[in-house]
Amino acid sequence: MAMLIHLTGINETGWTEGFRAALPGYPVKQRSDAYQPADIDYIFTWKPAADAFVGLDNLKAIFSLGAGVDALLQHPALPDVPIVRFVDDELTHCMSDYVISQVSMHQRLFTRYAAHQKKKVWSQLYPPASHEIGVGIMGLGVLGVDAAHKLKAIGFDVAGWSRSAKTIEGIETFAGNDQFDAFLARTDILVCLLPLTAETAGILNRETFGKLRRGPLIGGPAIVNAARGGHQKEADIAAALGDGTLAAASLDVFEVEPLPKDSPLWDIETCFITPHIAAISNEQSGVRYFAKMLLDHEAGQPLANVVDRGKGY
Amino acid sequence: MAMLIHLTGINETGWTEGFRAALPGYPVKQRSDAYQPADIDYIFTWKPAADAFVGLDNLKAIFSLGAGVDALLQHPALPDVPIVRFVDDELTHCMSDYVISQVSMHQRLFTRYAAHQKKKVWSQLYPPASHEIGVGIMGLGVLGVDAAHKLKAIGFDVAGWSRSAKTIEGIETFAGNDQFDAFLARTDILVCLLPLTAETAGILNRETFGKLRRGPLIGGPAIVNAARGGHQKEADIAAALGDGTLAAASLDVFEVEPLPKDSPLWDIETCFITPHIAAISNEQSGVRYFAKMLLDHEAGQPLANVVDRGKGY
Repeated sequence: MAMLIHLTGINETGWTEGFRAALPGYPVKQRSDAYQPADIDYIFTWKPAADAFVGLDNLKAIFSLGAGVDALLQHPALPDVPIVRFVDDELTHCMSDYVISQVSMHQRLFTRYAAHQKKKVWSQLYPPASHEIGVGIMGLGVLGVDAAHKLKAIGFDVAGWSRSAKTIEGIETFAGNDQFDAFLARTDILVCLLPLTAETAGILNRETFGKLRRGPLIGGPAIVNAARGGHQKEADIAAALGDGTLAAASLDVFEVEPLPKDSPLWDIETCFITPHIAAISNEQSGVRYFAKMLLDHEAGQPLANVVDRGKGY
Repeated sequence: MAMLIHLTGINETGWTEGFRAALPGYPVKQRSDAYQPADIDYIFTWKPAADAFVGLDNLKAIFSLGAGVDALLQHPALPDVPIVRFVDDELTHCMSDYVISQVSMHQRLFTRYAAHQKKKVWSQLYPPASHEIGVGIMGLGVLGVDAAHKLKAIGFDVAGWSRSAKTIEGIETFAGNDQFDAFLARTDILVCLLPLTAETAGILNRETFGKLRRGPLIGGPAIVNAARGGHQKEADIAAALGDGTLAAASLDVFEVEPLPKDSPLWDIETCFITPHIAAISNEQSGVRYFAKMLLDHEAGQPLANVVDRGKGY
């Protein structure tokens, strides 16, 4: 028995030490350690290499550091064992922080006032109240539901959309292709918290933007993408910001990351760019979560938050 | 009996028509109408002229359009009758919108990321979670309490300070000069929603800034002023932003408004300027509020939200 830590571009040694401290008596290996592949029962991974799963013939489960498993599911040699996603309270909290900040910035017309400040213009334009603003959240997993409840608590008129129908107390919900247009038609600020799947790739496109409500939000609708760069067509975003289809955008993720220096998005004043920092998985809570999952599973409990490969999340 | 509408720099005719519609049978006059000053029982006013109260010998009450009455109390010929402040749910809602947007922008390091974007720099710096950030609200009237509750609901570690001790369920409170330093020492983002009085004038000064916590907020503390320009010393703010005592500021009010073109604040990238648009009194809700107040008072009910002239609010 053993757990293998296989992390690319992340502090593998730090996480390994964390798991060792949390799992006394249970062998925890990192890639540079000596171990027998056949001894590995669990692998904890982020961006696994092509040969990551070679020889892991007795694997019981794959533990994924990320909440999104779109990249992991593309792995050409992915073993047929349960994949457990990280559902992290702290990550959820930080994601809602990001979403609230961006939604309220756009509601309060910050890109317009930043432009006025640059020109030293004093021009009083009163932002609409939050209860006049329709916020539409795409994706009603743990992240989307938390953001929806908090945005509602501070006064926004919130609705949610997901692929399959969901009921959330106090929040109007829409589902599937049939209800997508109706959802967009009541949305001034569109927030993407979707998993990246074949169905959701490129959903932030010109056609979608054109269906958003042109109503109380002065200047036009805005978008916020905190999910994956694959959800957005950046050429469409640049064009929509240019011709006024969109008044503003907040993007934390990009088709290519880091965002290339020659991307036109950098220079668009109505596009607020952050470098994929909306929310990250915290080492401390990650170790706690997966160490408990391993021990519970070894004690005969079922795994939680297992990925549905058919749905892709 | 009559009500006089006396508004400077605001649509006096619009408000007059609103009150006429809300008070059928009760005479409502604007300044250009014919009326006997002695007939005026109530005056509804904003920025009254020097002779505003001449001949109003039978006045029963002054209705103030603004929530803040600092300017009104300076009037050299203010009659000795009750002054009723406007406590407006819509204004409260909009003020909390503004406060939430500015607090969450600073928590998410928006001035830093805006500067990075300008230089096309991709540098991942994770903002602290909202529950790590101490937000300190100065002023615990209707506005301060609403903002405190909402900021707490979305996760911030909120405390309040007021001149006289107050108890607010779920919010840590501090009071008076004795507890001011302790309040500042747990505050990363300081929000001013105080009434402007002799005691609070200039409270946003260098000494205050130097006592704020230098803790979880990356770069240092931030301030938000949505109360009155008289609360702030702008030279101190510019200096504190320059030397890093403050990391950022959001100012909606200024010592002189409109903010003069030669103010150094315009050019400070860490100072976010808006032109006194945090919240305004809404005509519809104002008419409803004061028409009801007048009718209730005529029916023998006591006035509500009467200003304490000793305290200044």
